[in-house]
Order: sequence, then C-alpha cells, then structure tokens
Amino acid sequence: MTTLDEVRAWDAADPLTPYRARFRLPEGVIYLDGNSLGALPHATVARLRDVVEREWGEGLVRSWNDAGWVEAPARIGAKIARLIGAEADEVVVADSTTIDLFKLAVAAAGLRTGAILAERDNFPTDSYIGSSAAALTGREFRAAPSNAIADALTPDVAVAILTQVDYRTARRHDLAGLTAAARVHDTRIVWDLSHSVGAVPLDLHRDSVELAVGCGYKYLNGGPGAPAFLYVARDLQARIASPIAGWWSHAAPFDFDAAYRPAAGITRFASGTPPMLGLLALEAGVDLMLEADPEMLWRKSVRLYDLFAERLATRCPDLQIISPADPAVRGSHLSIAHPQALAIVRALTARGVIGDYRTPDIARFGLTPLYLSFADIWSAVEVLHGVLERGEWRDARFAQGGIVT
Amino acid sequence: MTTLDEVRAWDAADPLTPYRARFRLPEGVIYLDGNSLGALPHATVARLRDVVEREWGEGLVRSWNDAGWVEAPARIGAKIARLIGAEADEVVVADSTTIDLFKLAVAAAGLRTGAILAERDNFPTDSYIGSSAAALTGREFRAAPSNAIADALTPDVAVAILTQVDYRTARRHDLAGLTAAARVHDTRIVWDLSHSVGAVPLDLHRDSVELAVGCGYKYLNGGPGAPAFLYVARDLQARIASPIAGWWSHAAPFDFDAAYRPAAGITRFASGTPPMLGLLALEAGVDLMLEADPEMLWRKSVRLYDLFAERLATRCPDLQIISPADPAVRGSHLSIAHPQALAIVRALTARGVIGDYRTPDIARFGLTPLYLSFADIWSAVEVLHGVLERGEWRDARFAQGGIVT
Repeated sequence: MTTLDEVRAWDAADPLTPYRARFRLPEGVIYLDGNSLGALPHATVARLRDVVEREWGEGLVRSWNDAGWVEAPARIGAKIARLIGAEADEVVVADSTTIDLFKLAVAAAGLRTGAILAERDNFPTDSYIGSSAAALTGREFRAAPSNAIADALTPDVAVAILTQVDYRTARRHDLAGLTAAARVHDTRIVWDLSHSVGAVPLDLHRDSVELAVGCGYKYLNGGPGAPAFLYVARDLQARIASPIAGWWSHAAPFDFDAAYRPAAGITRFASGTPPMLGLLALEAGVDLMLEADPEMLWRKSVRLYDLFAERLATRCPDLQIISPADPAVRGSHLSIAHPQALAIVRALTARGVIGDYRTPDIARFGLTPLYLSFADIWSAVEVLHGVLERGEWRDARFAQGGIVT
Repeated sequence: MTTLDEVRAWDAADPLTPYRARFRLPEGVIYLDGNSLGALPHATVARLRDVVEREWGEGLVRSWNDAGWVEAPARIGAKIARLIGAEADEVVVADSTTIDLFKLAVAAAGLRTGAILAERDNFPTDSYIGSSAAALTGREFRAAPSNAIADALTPDVAVAILTQVDYRTARRHDLAGLTAAARVHDTRIVWDLSHSVGAVPLDLHRDSVELAVGCGYKYLNGGPGAPAFLYVARDLQARIASPIAGWWSHAAPFDFDAAYRPAAGITRFASGTPPMLGLLALEAGVDLMLEADPEMLWRKSVRLYDLFAERLATRCPDLQIISPADPAVRGSHLSIAHPQALAIVRALTARGVIGDYRTPDIARFGLTPLYLSFADIWSAVEVLHGVLERGEWRDARFAQGGIVT
C-alpha cells in the first residue's frame, strides 16, 4: 500500500510538478473540477490585462490588424491542431461547442440521406443538437445508449454525434474503431472532444477522424465560457458547407460582398465577429498546454487515478467508483455513485475540496496533471473520509445551494 | 458660422462632457470609430481584473453560482432591455449577431410559409444569414435594395431581415412604419439594431417590434467581439422555437435531462455555455450607457453631426457627404464618398484621427456622444483639411495596409 512519504517523493520527482506554479490556485483548495472549468494560468492574467488596456484601450479598432486579432481564430486553431493530431489548417476557434456541433452536424448531413444519431445519455447539448439538426434537415432523429452505440451505427445513419469521453463516468469510446466502423457505411461521426482535448492523447489523423468539436474552458484552461473549436479534415472542407454563412466565414470579409463566397479552408466554418477576450484568454491556456508533453500528462493522469482509487479503497471502501478501471477506455476524471452525492460534493467544497455533482447520483472529480499533485489526491481522500465519517453531508446547509453543482 | 470659441463653450456647458473621463482614450487620438469598436471604459478594466483574478482565479467553478455567472445572460439582457424599450424578460445576451440573426430568422420562418427577404446592400452577414436560413428551411431567398425595401415587403414574404441604420450611409429605416406595414401581411421583420442600440433612441414596444438582434461591441462599448443580444417580444416567445436547442436554452440545464424542454422565457433562445469574459465586459459598458439619458445622447449626436457637416462645408467643400441630412432618417455616423476614401482614412489614422473605410469608396466617421467633444469634431475636420490640402493620402504607405480599414 502506498504511503504518504512515497506520494511526496512522487511529487518531488515528477517533471510536471513545476507547472503547478504556473497557475493561480487559491490557498487551501484542492481543485478537482478542472474538467468543468480549468484553473487560471498566471500568464492569462498578464495577457488579458495587455489585451484590454493596450490592445483594446490604446489600439482601439487598429488592433484588428496591428495586434493580430483578425488572424486569432485560425492562429489559435493551428495551435490546438498540434494538441489533437491535426494539421494547422484544419482547426478554427469559433462560437460554443453547441453552435459548432450544430454547424458540423448539419454540414455533414448534406453529404447523404439518412438519420441523425446521438447518444441518449451523453451531455445533453449533444443530443439536443442532434434533434435540432434532424428537425431542420428533415431527417429522422435517433438516440441510442452510449454502451450500444456501435450497434446503432447502421447503414441508414448519415451523421452520428458522439462524445469520446463520457461526462458522467469518464468512459472513453474507441475513437478509431467507431470512426472506421462508421465509414464502412459512409456514416460521418461528429466527435465531441470536450472531455478529451488536453486530457487524453489524441491523434485525429491517425484515427481518420473527419469532424470534431472541442471545449476551450475545461482541460485547455481557457476561462469561463471560452470559445470552442471545430475540426474538419482537409479533404472534407470543400465538400461540405456551413449552414450558418456569416461574414467571418467569407473569403474576404472586408470586401463586404453582397455575394457569399466561402473562405478557402477551415475558416469557412467560422461565423460572426470572433469574441476576442475569450479567444486570447484561451490562447494563453493553449500555449501553456503546448509546453507539456501529452503522453507525460496522460501517464500522470493514470497515476493520479490509480492513487485516488487505491486511497478510496483504503479509506472509503464503501464508495462505488463507476469510472472504468482500465485507462485505455477512460478519460481523465473519477466518478463515484452515491445516493447523497450532491450533499457530499457540497460538504467537500466547504472543506476546500472542489469536485462536482452530476445527476442523478454522481460525485465527479477531475484529474488535471498540470496542476494537481499526488499529495492533493491523498489529501482529498482524507477530507472525503472525514466528511463521510463525521456525516458532515447531513448538515442542512448542504441540502440546498446554487444550480451549478 | 460657428467659431472655435463657441465650440469650446458648448463642451464646457455639455452635461455629457464628464463621461469622457470614464473612458480610457489614448493621448493624441480623436476616435471616430466607436461605431465599429467602442472605446474602453475605465470601469471595464477594473471589472475584468476582478472577473479574472478573483471570480475565475479564486472562485473557480463556484463562481457560476457565487458570482452570478449563471444569471449573467438574462441579467445583462434585462439591462439592455432598458436601452431599447423592451421588458426585462424579452432580451438575452448570447452568441454573435450572426448566430442570433440565424436563430431568429429560422424561428420566425416557422410561423408561416413564404420567402425570406434581406437587403442587398446591407452589412453582408445579414443577407448571408437570410440566404442560409432560406436554404435550410426550403424557402425562396430574395434580396432587395434597401431604398425599395417597403415595396419588397409583399404578402408572400414570411421573414425579412432588415437593419435599421445602414452601416455605410447611416440611413435609418422607419422602424415603426415598416414593422406595421409588414404585419398587415403577417410578415415578420427581424430587426438588426447593431448601429442603433446606444446610438439612436429606441422604443421597441411603442413600435411593436417583435424580433431584433443587436451588437455589443459598437455603441455599447462591450469590447472586441462582445456577445450580441437578441429580443423576442413576450407574446411571440412561446410561439416560436430556436433552431439551435442547446443545454443553455433548456428549462433546467443542470438537470442534464436527455429530453429537451425549452426554458420558459427569452432564455429559450440562448444556446451553449455563455462566454463570461465577453459578457461581463459588455455589462460594464451597458452599465455606463445606462447612466446617460438616451434622448440627451441623441441630441448631442445630432449636434456633433451638424457641426461636422458645417465644418466640412467650410474647410473641405468638395467632399460629398452621403449620410442623410435629416436626423429623423439617420443614425449616428457621418459618411463621405471619395474615390480615394481608403487612402484618406489611412492618412487620417496616421495623424490620430481614426475613422474607417467601407467599400467601395466610403470614409465613415462614428459619432459617440459619451466620449466625443465638439472640439474633437472641430479638430478632426482641421486634420482632414490638412490631409487633403497637402495630398498626404497620396503617400505610398497609405496604398496598402491591414484588411480592417
């Protein structure tokens, strides 16, 4: 059984340990919710100050040219491309994951007839968008359970919206296998990488992924509501059209042409004026993520998980972990099912251990190797043990709270 | 003829003069482009620092509840409602004007059969979206000249996307008149108020407007790429559906329901996770705008325009103003047509007088009464006179530049 001294020695020897100092984390908090909202990099504070005070305040409208704002969506997309195994001209930052899912699902439906499929138990925006896209394109909408999704990829499915890492359990789909299986029937998968990017190693080209979106505010540490990104494989870019043609997806936005002419590459999937504050905060997060080796991050995530599971088995043996034990089919969080999960999460938060709750009965803990130590995991389980031992979650104040839990 | 002494006296007596000190404007710049990107309020600098360092950095995911992030889209919408003569529950901040135009145009098309109409010479995103919405809903798309738009509102038009104030000329449509004329045939107008909100007095209820969108980064001083807002009259909210159902438009997003159930009010037209940095910067701009009396702002805008026109007639009599002389049919900018408009705008910028260029031959100057003085207008025309007199725009360096002009 691992000892606290060993855990401290792991941290001392961990080449990722110095990254923690790159984040502004509050005193007395163990932050296990970077899979919901990533922590604040110090660099982002300085960058946003410069963006606001110098680029906007002093540069004013000139900064669209002089500060590289015009190029930001493609520039940051190219950086994210390096994180996901894509080419620089296959990723653009635009809108939210919800809007980007919509654009790619409708665009992909243009390639052939057939139904639109979503996962019934996925993060809801994905199935709502599947349903929205189906309604607008006159297709049948289907929702199948995630654990039977391979069987649901029948030849009559035109587009499937699948999330690689499940937001509740961290169950990870076989990206390459499902993509290949779908292609046999000419079915396109729009992959939602929200819980993957910055968390699990990705190589979209190796895995022949054609369409994907991802979230900027989780493992990429882009800030609350950071813009999302979308990926379209180069071969497909000219064959599909965004259903939302905006001035920012035009080949020459500042020609103000009455006639729409889509941009040559991935920019044709952009839409309106890009949200610069969010974009440039995201860029700072992505820049930091690019410094670390993704394989090293993933190996540490697995070790954080294993320690978490071992400590839970030792200190809270009655708790039921619902995440897969096998890292090959898991993302970067650990989830526990408990009838009082919500009150337990609130009681933990009151003690500075921040995870979150997901319906109906899940306490979820994100593992972010850039800023979490092994000692954090040890301490978090100690706090959890105490909360359970003392029955702190029974306190009336944990029976109610804000809607984000 | 007005003298410089008189102009200075106007500034001294102007109750809006103190607002200029609320903005961080660079030394040596006369900023006549607040209709493209509004200036930076000092309050925004402090607010964003707090949002980033305390709310995000310290509060982390807890700030969705504790810092009021969840309520921000509706809260800021309610503030904007006061600027446009709407009820608090009729406006929500979400996405970009492009996305919001798409959502409302498609939603309105659901009410009846018929074509989708746009203005041929409008800001292009509006007609691109008209065309996109028509393609997706299987409608005929029509584009008619703005100056003949009343005639184009025929009974077979289901939805028209019209911009109240033209981005090139500042020509202002008759909001109430066109809305009433359209309603006779059961035609819905989606009004784009991008160049209206914060610039010309608006009373959407008085004018029976049913659907509108507006821009956050122009006269509202919300920052580069600030989120947009959308307005749906209360009576219509339950009768139309957003074509992009996202988790943030759900009645209870944090229930993570597989079944979509739209929120009760205007929030049903939101989409994905709201971009908090952009939203809260916009809120600071809106709060500042709410301090000033809209009628007083508009009266000053008219006086700024009249002074501008008088000084141009005196000092640059060959220049052709293409904005309407009558303020009743004009927005808050002044445009000049000149074959060398682009080089002239660049030469002016080099001298610290920042306007912008719009194709094919327009030099455009925004009038923002919150931070422009009468003396600014006087000085700007003096600089323009010098640039023309000395032929500075002929300099080779003004023949090329960035794409935002």
